[in-house]
Amino acid sequence: MIRQYEIILPRFSRGFHLITEIIEKELVPLPETGMLNLFLRHTSAALTINENADPDVARDMVYAINKIVPEGDPGYIHTIEGPDDMPAHVKSSLLSVSLTVPVTRGRLNLGTWQGIYLCEFRNAGGARKITATLFQ
Amino acid sequence: MIRQYEIILPRFSRGFHLITEIIEKELVPLPETGMLNLFLRHTSAALTINENADPDVARDMVYAINKIVPEGDPGYIHTIEGPDDMPAHVKSSLLSVSLTVPVTRGRLNLGTWQGIYLCEFRNAGGARKITATLFQ
Amino acid sequence: MIRQYEIILPRFSRGFHLITEIIEKELVPLPETGMLNLFLRHTSAALTINENADPDVARDMVYAINKIVPEGDPGYIHTIEGPDDMPAHVKSSLLSVSLTVPVTRGRLNLGTWQGIYLCEFRNAGGARKITATLFQ
Repeated sequence: MIRQYEIILPRFSRGFHLITEIIEKELVPLPETGMLNLFLRHTSAALTINENADPDVARDMVYAINKIVPEGDPGYIHTIEGPDDMPAHVKSSLLSVSLTVPVTRGRLNLGTWQGIYLCEFRNAGGARKITATLFQ
Repeated sequence: MIRQYEIILPRFSRGFHLITEIIEKELVPLPETGMLNLFLRHTSAALTINENADPDVARDMVYAINKIVPEGDPGYIHTIEGPDDMPAHVKSSLLSVSLTVPVTRGRLNLGTWQGIYLCEFRNAGGARKITATLFQ
Repeated sequence: MIRQYEIILPRFSRGFHLITEIIEKELVPLPETGMLNLFLRHTSAALTINENADPDVARDMVYAINKIVPEGDPGYIHTIEGPDDMPAHVKSSLLSVSLTVPVTRGRLNLGTWQGIYLCEFRNAGGARKITATLFQ
């Protein structure tokens, strides 16, 4: 059995933002046993799992990803939408827009320290949309 | 219900290549609501989602990934298959070979600007095979 | 139909470790046709697919990932758990904790040269847990 939802996230600033609770609220009740695929319908943001406790992790993730994919690289050709655009595309592919999470005993079966992050790579990305597909 | 297909892609040159239409053609008719997993059965190429409109994005993606994983690094030991081989393995893990996409109203539910790319990291990778698994 | 398992991996040292056989042993008998999602419930390790034949590939993967995400970067704030911790979080997001693999004719449908790796990024990560969700 499949259920599918469109989730419209609030407008987030550039950075990593925990969205686990937003996702869970949109999908209750979750099945006893199942699987959830979250698919972000954009090419300059991403979904990832990371540490949910210390806000410094989100800050350091941004720092690290910006170092791996620096802005202002003179080698880029696709620059018409601004210096944050092409790096955002690269980061989106590195971190991925599709995330699959198990559902167990009616809950997202994340580890104790795991949270779901929206990674907003644009300076003004706007409201992002996720298609959530739930199997049971 | 599950359907499974093997898709043999045409031989692509090194670079990022849009394959959305090839995939859709192989899988019609798609179910009303469902999910598609594409699994590339190789370790020196990858599948990713990125901007489908401006060909410069594909060019800049190649440029960026080559900068993150440069060829000719004297630290590599696994060099017998050529200088493009070990970097291709690293890129394949960074971008992933498994991609899951929702199906909605009989279509791949990609965002307006999203396309599916085959990322060919070898100079002469040959014809690549994808196992497509479709749930409805 | 969905089956779900918790797999507790043996304690691995820092590095890339082939776990294909461990996973298959835990899940037999696999369905004729289906899909397997492996979800690692940790934020400082990852799951990836890569070349399964030459042990130098695992060594070079570690080398390459350490170069992309170097330790000892003075820009990190989240350093209380040691110099290997924050880089491990970054690597975990780059390589991902969720991996989906097709099942065909009762076997994981990996390519000839593909194996499933646990990527242990901590110096002492301990025993890692995977939630395996199997669809048929």
